[in-house]
Amino acid sequence: MGMLQKCTRLSLRSTYMWSVCPQYSTAVAARETQDRALIVQWTQHRGVHNSRRLGANPVNPSAAPPRLPFSRVTQEDLSFFRALLPGRTITDPDLLKSSNVDWLKTVQGSSDVLLRPKTAEEVSEVLRYCNERNLAVCPQGGNTGLVGGSVPVFDEIILSTSLMNQVIAFDNISGILTCQAGCVLENLSHYLEERDFIMPLDLGAKGSCHIGGNVSTNAGGLRLLRYGSLRGTVLGLEVVLADGRVLNCLATLRKDNTGYDLKQLFIGSEGTLGVITAVSILCPRKPKAVNVAFLGCSSFQQLLETFQCCRGMLGEILSAFEFLDASCMNLLEKHLKLTNPITECPFYIIIETAGSNATHDEEKLHHFLEEVMTSSLVTDGTVATEATKIKALWSLRERVTEALTHEGYTYKYDISLPVGKIYDLVQDMRRHLGDMAKNVVGYGHVGDGNLHLNITSSSKDPALLAAIEPYVYEWTSQWKGSISAEHGLGLKKRNYIYYSKPSEAVALMGSIKAMLDPKGILNPYKTLPDNIN
Amino acid sequence: MGMLQKCTRLSLRSTYMWSVCPQYSTAVAARETQDRALIVQWTQHRGVHNSRRLGANPVNPSAAPPRLPFSRVTQEDLSFFRALLPGRTITDPDLLKSSNVDWLKTVQGSSDVLLRPKTAEEVSEVLRYCNERNLAVCPQGGNTGLVGGSVPVFDEIILSTSLMNQVIAFDNISGILTCQAGCVLENLSHYLEERDFIMPLDLGAKGSCHIGGNVSTNAGGLRLLRYGSLRGTVLGLEVVLADGRVLNCLATLRKDNTGYDLKQLFIGSEGTLGVITAVSILCPRKPKAVNVAFLGCSSFQQLLETFQCCRGMLGEILSAFEFLDASCMNLLEKHLKLTNPITECPFYIIIETAGSNATHDEEKLHHFLEEVMTSSLVTDGTVATEATKIKALWSLRERVTEALTHEGYTYKYDISLPVGKIYDLVQDMRRHLGDMAKNVVGYGHVGDGNLHLNITSSSKDPALLAAIEPYVYEWTSQWKGSISAEHGLGLKKRNYIYYSKPSEAVALMGSIKAMLDPKGILNPYKTLPDNIN
Repeated sequence: MGMLQKCTRLSLRSTYMWSVCPQYSTAVAARETQDRALIVQWTQHRGVHNSRRLGANPVNPSAAPPRLPFSRVTQEDLSFFRALLPGRTITDPDLLKSSNVDWLKTVQGSSDVLLRPKTAEEVSEVLRYCNERNLAVCPQGGNTGLVGGSVPVFDEIILSTSLMNQVIAFDNISGILTCQAGCVLENLSHYLEERDFIMPLDLGAKGSCHIGGNVSTNAGGLRLLRYGSLRGTVLGLEVVLADGRVLNCLATLRKDNTGYDLKQLFIGSEGTLGVITAVSILCPRKPKAVNVAFLGCSSFQQLLETFQCCRGMLGEILSAFEFLDASCMNLLEKHLKLTNPITECPFYIIIETAGSNATHDEEKLHHFLEEVMTSSLVTDGTVATEATKIKALWSLRERVTEALTHEGYTYKYDISLPVGKIYDLVQDMRRHLGDMAKNVVGYGHVGDGNLHLNITSSSKDPALLAAIEPYVYEWTSQWKGSISAEHGLGLKKRNYIYYSKPSEAVALMGSIKAMLDPKGILNPYKTLPDNIN
Repeated sequence: MGMLQKCTRLSLRSTYMWSVCPQYSTAVAARETQDRALIVQWTQHRGVHNSRRLGANPVNPSAAPPRLPFSRVTQEDLSFFRALLPGRTITDPDLLKSSNVDWLKTVQGSSDVLLRPKTAEEVSEVLRYCNERNLAVCPQGGNTGLVGGSVPVFDEIILSTSLMNQVIAFDNISGILTCQAGCVLENLSHYLEERDFIMPLDLGAKGSCHIGGNVSTNAGGLRLLRYGSLRGTVLGLEVVLADGRVLNCLATLRKDNTGYDLKQLFIGSEGTLGVITAVSILCPRKPKAVNVAFLGCSSFQQLLETFQCCRGMLGEILSAFEFLDASCMNLLEKHLKLTNPITECPFYIIIETAGSNATHDEEKLHHFLEEVMTSSLVTDGTVATEATKIKALWSLRERVTEALTHEGYTYKYDISLPVGKIYDLVQDMRRHLGDMAKNVVGYGHVGDGNLHLNITSSSKDPALLAAIEPYVYEWTSQWKGSISAEHGLGLKKRNYIYYSKPSEAVALMGSIKAMLDPKGILNPYKTLPDNIN
């Protein structure tokens, strides 16, 4: 494609993007006057085009859009890949099965090729080739994503980071770890713990998820309250761009203000702007003492008051404040045979402390527990200081997702709201759905204002889905929340982006995509809405 | 300008940017094979053009380049501004003086117009007009920057945030503050302290600097060790783009993974991509107890060992670990009449603890001090727990910059290095410069691997400068450090970017600039090197 053609296309896209808005939820997207004007303008002039652009199923914006006109993999392509990655170009359908379907088994692709590069140079060769041939690529880490972002939608080539699993360096003075993108989070945690450090993030999927995937999805998890987001702890990235250029921003410095911070573009962009091949990350010292308390509250208001009291009294040693409701506990008992360690109650809290002095930490925790028990904020509780008991208490929180999979089909929502509002949504949803849903449960990260709302039914149920969406997104948008706090948008949530971002912002995202991946080969159908993708 | 013209220019720029490299330091820029090839290619083909492109003074890449062909302000322009901002369109040369010169008095612009908008809408109107008229604009906060980033280079219109000084909201459950960009950092600190919270950043210039300027320059400061960088604590931004579009990303959520994180583009880009008009930021609880220890060490090695010991023993309550050398102390005594509170020694440390339990904190600090005194890592020390004494100890660190200004002319370097190397650079510089320099002093943030290297002479001295640069940058690059840890690049350091960033990265920065500000009206001559700007 000549320079002029490429360039004209780019500017046409930009112009177009700036002027459109999705139709399916005018009410919400129109939260600003300017948006409202754009929508009116757009509805009048482009209404017919848009419902077609929204994909095969305009009533379900989560469904896959029509396949875009990418090339299809030929024998010649396979020969190229086999010469580049001998023994690491997988075409056996049995071996491809698990990479074509997501962990929740709700999104199913039909890719015929899985590539397993070991180096950034190999990733670069693959992408350079695919970009020239206009072949779409789906980058894949541990494939533990919950929004259909890590599996192909059609026949995209799967580019797996699983063999890029080497630690490159660790500096035990600064605590800065540099490693390849395919390192499994739990393996990194073990590596660091032997060296008296820990990873700044921890999540339920740690046994499978890759650090590259964590960074690509800006994973939050259980330690964000204490150590902050990956936007602060990731210090450097090595990224391969769509056309094969390798961008080396793998710095290992806590501070570097030389120009724009390009690595931020690739954190949380779900592999749509580049493929992360290596990461450097700032790791905290391993705490000398860890305590976990599992407490019960009789109302969400009491839970919130407990949180306030906890922040004041535990202060700098508080490392997690998580909750689950009674419905979650029922599912844990029913499907996973876990035991509730305390008296039954409507809400359960997990509080973790991590500090440098066991005596001080226990004293702080003791005073806090005395306070919340005396004031009847908490009805019952248990405390663990020993590793296996800590693990058992944590599994009550970490295994809720797994328990839910035994219920049939789960509609999952990962919502940020002002912390005082997070359980109102669960209760309102129960009222709203009535008998239609088997279960409406809430759990999540109170400390971050992040609710995991899960709604189950025996099987996939379009009527139930229609009752949930866009209701849940409108509710969230009304409180200026985020419709995806930490899971990302992937395939499933891409078209709902306007509930949390103004149209000017989404259009600018489209311009960035067009700049970095003009042919759109990287993880197509993901993150950006169909009217831009 | 028609679409095609604009577009052709953009793509030509991109192509050009991707293939060039600065000539003035081939040795360092060539740290990668690919770069080396590019440089050879470029030296052969473009050598003559480049030295011209580098500006008026090719031997001093810090100097101003020739004025770019922006329009000049006419009477008609002034009439427009006066109608839009009555009484807030300043043209009196006396009133303009202080805005035309930087705090260090090393960069002097000649702007004839200073605008003082109060709202994002007014900023939007100003930029829309300037963009149409091709008038260059220099956004200005508290004008406390140290790299010439906040003053006009020629006749750019100064757009001051000083009247955008309102707090918009504060949520005392989540600790999230939303305010206009022109709020003075110290005013925000006072506002928050009354509500039992603190700002996550603190710096010497707090009495004048604006939060919008802090975010635009990704200011680090004294609390970064504890609360992390602004990339993690800034939750939302409102930004006006070059053409007047208002980008509302002013979220107040700890977690939001809906699409690309656009606000990151404006953090640290020094007003070259957009003008920040409002900020939302996550603020920590005000600690119940603060202690400050001022200690002396007889070698830098002992200082580093003290740091290691401190991180282990003070753990989560450590909130700052700063140092200054004996030369800094001499200047504080000489110019500011401050008193050294301990026995004279080669290195001084300031350690701050901040925690939720005074007894626990004092116990931890006591054990730590006992350990470092017994093991002779520290030769002398004093501890303060009371506010005025704490302030007095902190001023020994915070007022070094001020003391230096009394020396004559100061060449300032703000370097990130692996922490073990930071003082080697000071010592090497002393050897290297011999009698040429009046003083070579080092101070800074040990905890962040961030050295402030300052070299003084009675007056501006080109021979001294030639001995310092590029030597200091080559030294830094050799250890994979950053040539600007927290000050940014501004005017003075823009052409040195290649010492810390590969050419592919700088080229991509150029593409981002061209996308967001195609006419280049926003803070021209800053941040990006002359071969791109």
